[in-house]
Amino acid sequence: HVDWDASAAEKGGYDYFMLKEIAEQPKAVADTLLGRIGADGRLTLDEIRIPDRALREADKIVIVGCGTAFHAGLIAKYAIEHWTRIPCEVELASEFRYRDPILDRRTLVVAISQSGETMDTLMALRHAREQGSRVLAICNTNGSTIPRESDAVLYTHAGPEVAVASTKAFLTQLVACYLVALYLGQVRQTKWGDEIGAVVRQLADSGRLVEQVLHTMEPVRELARSLADARSVLFLGRHVGYPVALEGALKLKELAYMHAEGFAAGELKHGPIALIEDGLPVVVVVPSPQGRSVLHDKIVSNIQEVRARGARTIVVAEEGDTAVEPYADHLIRVPAVPTLLQPLVATVPLQVFACELATAKGHEVDQPRNLAKSVTVE
Amino acid sequence: HVDWDASAAEKGGYDYFMLKEIAEQPKAVADTLLGRIGADGRLTLDEIRIPDRALREADKIVIVGCGTAFHAGLIAKYAIEHWTRIPCEVELASEFRYRDPILDRRTLVVAISQSGETMDTLMALRHAREQGSRVLAICNTNGSTIPRESDAVLYTHAGPEVAVASTKAFLTQLVACYLVALYLGQVRQTKWGDEIGAVVRQLADSGRLVEQVLHTMEPVRELARSLADARSVLFLGRHVGYPVALEGALKLKELAYMHAEGFAAGELKHGPIALIEDGLPVVVVVPSPQGRSVLHDKIVSNIQEVRARGARTIVVAEEGDTAVEPYADHLIRVPAVPTLLQPLVATVPLQVFACELATAKGHEVDQPRNLAKSVTVE
Repeated sequence: HVDWDASAAEKGGYDYFMLKEIAEQPKAVADTLLGRIGADGRLTLDEIRIPDRALREADKIVIVGCGTAFHAGLIAKYAIEHWTRIPCEVELASEFRYRDPILDRRTLVVAISQSGETMDTLMALRHAREQGSRVLAICNTNGSTIPRESDAVLYTHAGPEVAVASTKAFLTQLVACYLVALYLGQVRQTKWGDEIGAVVRQLADSGRLVEQVLHTMEPVRELARSLADARSVLFLGRHVGYPVALEGALKLKELAYMHAEGFAAGELKHGPIALIEDGLPVVVVVPSPQGRSVLHDKIVSNIQEVRARGARTIVVAEEGDTAVEPYADHLIRVPAVPTLLQPLVATVPLQVFACELATAKGHEVDQPRNLAKSVTVE
Repeated sequence: HVDWDASAAEKGGYDYFMLKEIAEQPKAVADTLLGRIGADGRLTLDEIRIPDRALREADKIVIVGCGTAFHAGLIAKYAIEHWTRIPCEVELASEFRYRDPILDRRTLVVAISQSGETMDTLMALRHAREQGSRVLAICNTNGSTIPRESDAVLYTHAGPEVAVASTKAFLTQLVACYLVALYLGQVRQTKWGDEIGAVVRQLADSGRLVEQVLHTMEPVRELARSLADARSVLFLGRHVGYPVALEGALKLKELAYMHAEGFAAGELKHGPIALIEDGLPVVVVVPSPQGRSVLHDKIVSNIQEVRARGARTIVVAEEGDTAVEPYADHLIRVPAVPTLLQPLVATVPLQVFACELATAKGHEVDQPRNLAKSVTVE
């Protein structure tokens, strides 16, 4: 159990809540992992009122969420399918509810919402439960409606998030999704205890690595300030880096009100490359060369292609990845981590980038225009 | 069988191939439907080397494609799940191949590609076949690689498409997807013959309705010319209108090189609404009020919300939908059609809009910068 200190809701020396919340991410990640591994080496979640038998029999996972939570779900899909071999779909809650989805007792629905009050997500889970599906909620707010109405809950312990644009909630949603995937692997015995333990240790280490990223952000802030007059920024990624690109773009939309769109790098030639013009900033999230080398090679080609057409390339790549160096106008280094965990470190520079760019434009980052912290209407 | 006349590859009086191909859509739709219903009232496809038993046993459909073909797949999902109750996933071919997808003998993969040579889609289908899945190709080019390597083929009879930005191929891909869904319904007996016949008649009628839309495009062209200096256009849609919004935005990106992004209207409050500023053109694809009235109501609210924040609303709505009138700065009428078939008529004005806007900007619409007609490398 993690207490929410009243004073934690203050800005604590930072100019904006968003800056404070970005800085709190190492602790938020650590808190979300706290007490998850029992003395017997087994993973425990919070309130799982779903029998193990039902989890073993689940033949499909559907993740629903909106905005940033949807992006966390897109990343989770890669981990869930890879670790558990259960097919996983990720849906926008607002679309899911009204498209007559195919659900039954063997479908496990994972509902992700920071506030636990997101109306579209709530309506989606109610619909799923009516069809006999079990619902596991990943939420940040104790006792909110979504966890109350779910069959199981895994709380993210990010602490109160005040800034409208989600940062620490997103990172902890990722951690929670990984834990759900590992828990399923444990119950279904598709992952051995030592494998689960290894991933949990890597997750535990990611707090420290996020801290390390935060200490190297000054060049990113400088770059962001220099781009305050840019009209547009594109984001490219592949595999788990694709939702990271979407999330980086969403942050820039929310805060800087500029055209920022994320693309799957493989789609570049099917349209987005027409947008490339002289000086257009393009952020590329590069998968680890230690993962699938073919993915790394492909994205290096993409970087070359956009650069050849005049783009200003901003490359997020792991330490030691020298192949990207010749094509990166700006290189943002993140620590080397296992392929599936890269979003935990790669998202952070994009949060800092958006926050600083918006500030340079003179925008109020904690309260972007037109947006509310939680969307409690459909 | 439909012959491709050599002269069909000429511009035939139009300034651009794209204009000609947009105008050819009624015929392309009709040709794609030609000969699909036998004397016994049963639907027949082209080359189905998949036993009925395998189609009856399929427990999952995965549609893969890139760019515009991916958007056709997103629309198809709604129809396939609604008519057959088989769960359907839609994936970008470039992501699908490398994310370790869960496939087996009971998975039916539908590969959509105009050229039949799209490399990412080809690699995806090869991977699927290695896992024992059956592959049905929807292609426009006889004897191309993707149909040759597939277990079944449904050819779209759009005729040669020369302009880089796909128009008539897209509409015929939609028709083909609907036919595949109906065929599955026939084989699996989830649809009765008279139900299938009714939808096929509606499809057959859509050619005429597309023609009708084409005759009312002058105000859309005028609007497009007036927006030649706009920096950005947003597109909103729900349900099958969501992929239509994505496709409308893609056309504008490809041809006008401007920030054009499509959103699920339900996501508006989760970020995109921050982009709304005075005079920003926002195109909204409105679902039929005859379908689910709750969806219609919600999107009318969305139109009011963006308009209250200064957006210039361009509303695509069916004839007789008076509820949208007070909030539409520009109203584009499309004929009333069944909910699932609306994309066939609603996409057309967005094609015309993008083509005219790009022309007004002085761009060469048949050969947009940086793009090739078919992407034969990964």
